[in-house]
Parts: sequence; structure tokens; C-alpha cells
Amino acid sequence: MNVSHISQLAQSFDLESWSTKALAEIETKLDQWIPSNAPANLSEPMKYAVLGGGKRLRSLLVIGAFESGTAGLDPSEMVWRREAALRAACAIELIHAYSLVHDDMPCMDNDVLRRGKPTVHVQFGEAMALLTGDTLQALAFEILTPEPTLIPAQLQAKLCGLIARAAGHNGMAGGQAIDLTSVGLQLNETQLSQMHKLKTGALLEVSVIAGALCAGVSMQALNKLQIFGSALGLAFQVIDDILDVTADSAILGKTAGKDASTDKPTYVSLMGLDAAKHKADVLLVQANQALLDSDLQNSDALVAIALKVVNRSY
Amino acid sequence: MNVSHISQLAQSFDLESWSTKALAEIETKLDQWIPSNAPANLSEPMKYAVLGGGKRLRSLLVIGAFESGTAGLDPSEMVWRREAALRAACAIELIHAYSLVHDDMPCMDNDVLRRGKPTVHVQFGEAMALLTGDTLQALAFEILTPEPTLIPAQLQAKLCGLIARAAGHNGMAGGQAIDLTSVGLQLNETQLSQMHKLKTGALLEVSVIAGALCAGVSMQALNKLQIFGSALGLAFQVIDDILDVTADSAILGKTAGKDASTDKPTYVSLMGLDAAKHKADVLLVQANQALLDSDLQNSDALVAIALKVVNRSY
Repeated sequence: MNVSHISQLAQSFDLESWSTKALAEIETKLDQWIPSNAPANLSEPMKYAVLGGGKRLRSLLVIGAFESGTAGLDPSEMVWRREAALRAACAIELIHAYSLVHDDMPCMDNDVLRRGKPTVHVQFGEAMALLTGDTLQALAFEILTPEPTLIPAQLQAKLCGLIARAAGHNGMAGGQAIDLTSVGLQLNETQLSQMHKLKTGALLEVSVIAGALCAGVSMQALNKLQIFGSALGLAFQVIDDILDVTADSAILGKTAGKDASTDKPTYVSLMGLDAAKHKADVLLVQANQALLDSDLQNSDALVAIALKVVNRSY
Repeated sequence: MNVSHISQLAQSFDLESWSTKALAEIETKLDQWIPSNAPANLSEPMKYAVLGGGKRLRSLLVIGAFESGTAGLDPSEMVWRREAALRAACAIELIHAYSLVHDDMPCMDNDVLRRGKPTVHVQFGEAMALLTGDTLQALAFEILTPEPTLIPAQLQAKLCGLIARAAGHNGMAGGQAIDLTSVGLQLNETQLSQMHKLKTGALLEVSVIAGALCAGVSMQALNKLQIFGSALGLAFQVIDDILDVTADSAILGKTAGKDASTDKPTYVSLMGLDAAKHKADVLLVQANQALLDSDLQNSDALVAIALKVVNRSY
């Protein structure tokens, strides 16, 4: 199994159509769940931060992992399970969106451009950016906890716990804390991987796990999906580092060359461009192998997403 | 029923001893649940923001409401119910602590003193203050979602949902958004109450409700406790406004005269000092009446806390 095998496999799956369909549903739900009954000065930046942009990699992973495990489900069970997966997908997008709003602020990365638009603090002021991020985090947990008649409480509690942990000190925020102290330092590969495993990987990994849990997959499949999510998360960051050097701002939708200019450690600075590209390929093969080793019936979407991550975008 | 009747009632209850005992347990749990395995540069400001200060009004309300409804509970049931109440109390303290860290930041209130100590951004820098607040919010939901063998998933999901809603756009953060836009405006009493009901009231109210839910009280009692919590929340803010005018910074542990100097609307600026004091008394009587009307067996702690809130401190 190598990258060209995976490319061949993925060619038989129409990722474009599948994504379009999944995203239509996600965007509708996000639009519906971002409150219009919030104070107006809060609704507007919340919508600005979340809607109308972003490739929704995390959502697609949730839905892809969900669909990988739904073969044979009873139609009535499918209804609440799909509702749960959509809520998990949107909750994770909200967590991701809040982290971008806060990371862009002047005291963090001081970035003025995101998804080709002015960042939230540029558009609405710093105080509202701070508050918008805080509110989006809370909203994630609101979405995960509807009436228990809609989704069983056990699944609600499990999703809340997993997503809180992926967002918190032992996940995204913890990685960000390490990142803040590592500017200008020479990290080795283990340290760099550890930082990214938390900062970016935790949320990507939980996307896969959450989707699979909503489908009710076996423990064996969950374990394999964890390996898939972990490898994919790291591959995503390696590619991100590569793009920071090779792409321009117009393509990225954010300021390119930022990491190098701020003296942040990256896979490219650590191992060089070619070795970084090779590492991404190895991770893709690992991710795909985990799916092949699982008892999942239908992991085509996940394979295609992983390939697309490594071939450039998201 | 008037304030002096309530004072007489409360005299028979030793709030000091009760609080000392409850707080010892809360502080121990907070210390235990704030992770020491987080990156060091994150653990330190998290502990700084949460531990060793604060009067823990919200925690005491959780425990007080919990104990008001535990008469007749089976001892084995009592174990997990008390564990749930302690988790709810600590989760709410973490949400409160995160809001203080973020509110103190330069782009919000730009305050340098909190509980008599330098604020988190003064001590650790703005980036870490932002991140610390974000992490504390996530940690609240981590604490609420232990293994379901410890606390039934149904209660976990319910607590997550209630606390997320109290923290979010229709609670604390929503009130803060209204507050940000109301500086320099002439709000009427309805508008001012609405702002505070969200900004401060929602978290105080959910403290009472969460504690009661952990005890498994009747729906009748829950409704009455909601009235109690709502009145107490408003009384708290009225008193806060009064203290902003009458107390000095040393007593408050934060900068006094801040609201007046920043031209924020307050109950004192709206109705004058005497009418504000009268309003606080009326709210105390309402709060107490709700407890008397309930079928709760033991609301002594709640009465005493409410009286203490109105008589000055917390």
C-alpha cells in the first residue's frame, strides 16, 4: 500500500458530490443553531465567525466516520443517530471557530485575515472577539445537550466529555499553551509532534471518534479510527507547515509565511521540505491501513478525505 | 415577613461553620480537578485564577440547594448525588473564574486588581490570560462528565446543558454583550434588570438549580428555587452596584468606583442609593418567601446565604 494505491482507491469515490451534500446539511444546521435570539451585537459576530467560509474538514470527518459505521442500522435508530452526528459535527466546528477567533487576536497571533475576510477582532473589535469566542464554546455544549427524547442522555454525556477534553488542557488549548512557549525554541520531532497532536490533532481525532460513536460502531473499529484520526491529524499539520512555505496568502486565505517570520518551529524548519512531504505520505498510508484493518463496512469517504488533506487542501 | 424576620430566622443557623466545612471540600476538589498534567505554563495561571481566593458564593449556593433537598435520601444514593453536586459546584466556579479572567483583560474592563491580587493578564500576559479562560471553560465540562458509573449519564447531560446555557448567549455571555453596548446609555430599570439577569443572575440561578437537581428534588421545589435564585441574583447585582459607590477598593478586593467612572448604568445611577437599598430588601423577602412556599425540608443555609448577600458580602 502506497500513496498511488490510495489515490486509485479514492478515485472510485465521488468526494466532491458527497461533500457538497454533507456540507449543505451542516451549513443549514449551523445557521439554525447559531442563535438569532442572542443580543444582536453577539449574534452578528457569531455568524460571521462560523458561517460562510471554512472547508469544514472536522464536520466532514464526523459525517464520514458516522457513515462508515451505519451499515445495517434500523431506519428509526438512524434518525436520532444522524441527528447526534450532525450536532457533534456542528459542536466541533463551533469549538474550532472559537479557537480561530481567539488565536487571531492581537495578543495571540495578531492576524488580520482569515478565510479571505478581516478577522473578527478587526471587524467587530477585540472585546466582541473575545466574547464571541467564549460564547461559541458554550454554544457547542448547548447543541450537544438537547432534550433526551431527541438523543439518549448517555450519548450526550459521552460527546460532551470527549469534546471538552479535546478542546481543553489536554487537547487544543494545551497544545496552544506549548506553542506559545516554543517560539524561537529548537524543538525536536517528538516535541513538535506532541504539540501538534494536542493543538490540531485532538480536535481532528475527536471528530472521527464522535462520528463513529454516534453510529454505534464496535470497540475494534473505534480503536482503528483513533489510529486513523491521529495519523490524519498529524499529516494535516505537516501539510500546513509545508503550505506555509510554498503557498501564497490568496490560496491559503490567511497570511502565508507567518510561522517562518515569527520563528515558530515547523516540520519544514525541523526536517526540510522533502522529508516533510515524505512524512505526510507515510502518515497517509498509516491512516489508510487503520481503516483497512477495521471491521468498518464503508470507509470510502474517510479515505478520500485523508487523501485530499495530504494532496493539499482543507 | 420582612428583613428583620429573616435575620432572626438566619440567626439560628451557623452559616460560618457550615460555609467553612463546605468550602474545605470545594477547595480540595478544585485543587484536585485543576490538572497538574497540563503544560506547566497553563497549569500555573489556571490555579492562580481559581484557587486561593473568592468567596465561592456560587459553590455555596450549589451545596446549600443540594442539602435543602436531601432529606430521606438513601446513603448509597447520597454518595453519587453529593459527588455530582461537588462537580456542579466546581464546574460553575470554573465558568465564573474564566469570566473574571476574560472580563479583566485590557480589551474588556482593563482591570489590574482582582481579589486583592494582580489580574491574570498582569501576572502571566494577555495571551496566557485568554488561553487560561478558554481552558477553564472546557474544564468545567470535563469535570461534569466523569465515567457514568460515578454519576448517571442523564444527570451529567442535564448539568452540562444547564450550565452551558447559563454561560452562553442566553446567559452570562449574552449579558456581557449587552453590557458592552450599554456604556453611556440611559437604560430603564427593565433593561438594566434584563442585562444583569443574564450577566450575573444566570450563573447564580443555575447554581441553585444544579444543586437541587443533584439532590433529586420535586418539580415544585425546583420552580420555587428558580424564583429564589432569580431574586437572589438580582439582589446580588443591586448590592454590587451599591458597594461600587460606598465601599473602597481594599474591602472590595477590586477597583471601586469603576462603574461610575466608566459611565456604566447601575441601579444606583438609575434610582438613587436609598431606593436601590430598598430594592435589595424587597428581593431578599421574595427569595425567602419562595423557600417558605416550597416543600423543601431544610433551606436554612440558603436563607442565611441570601441574607449575607444582601447584608453586604460575597
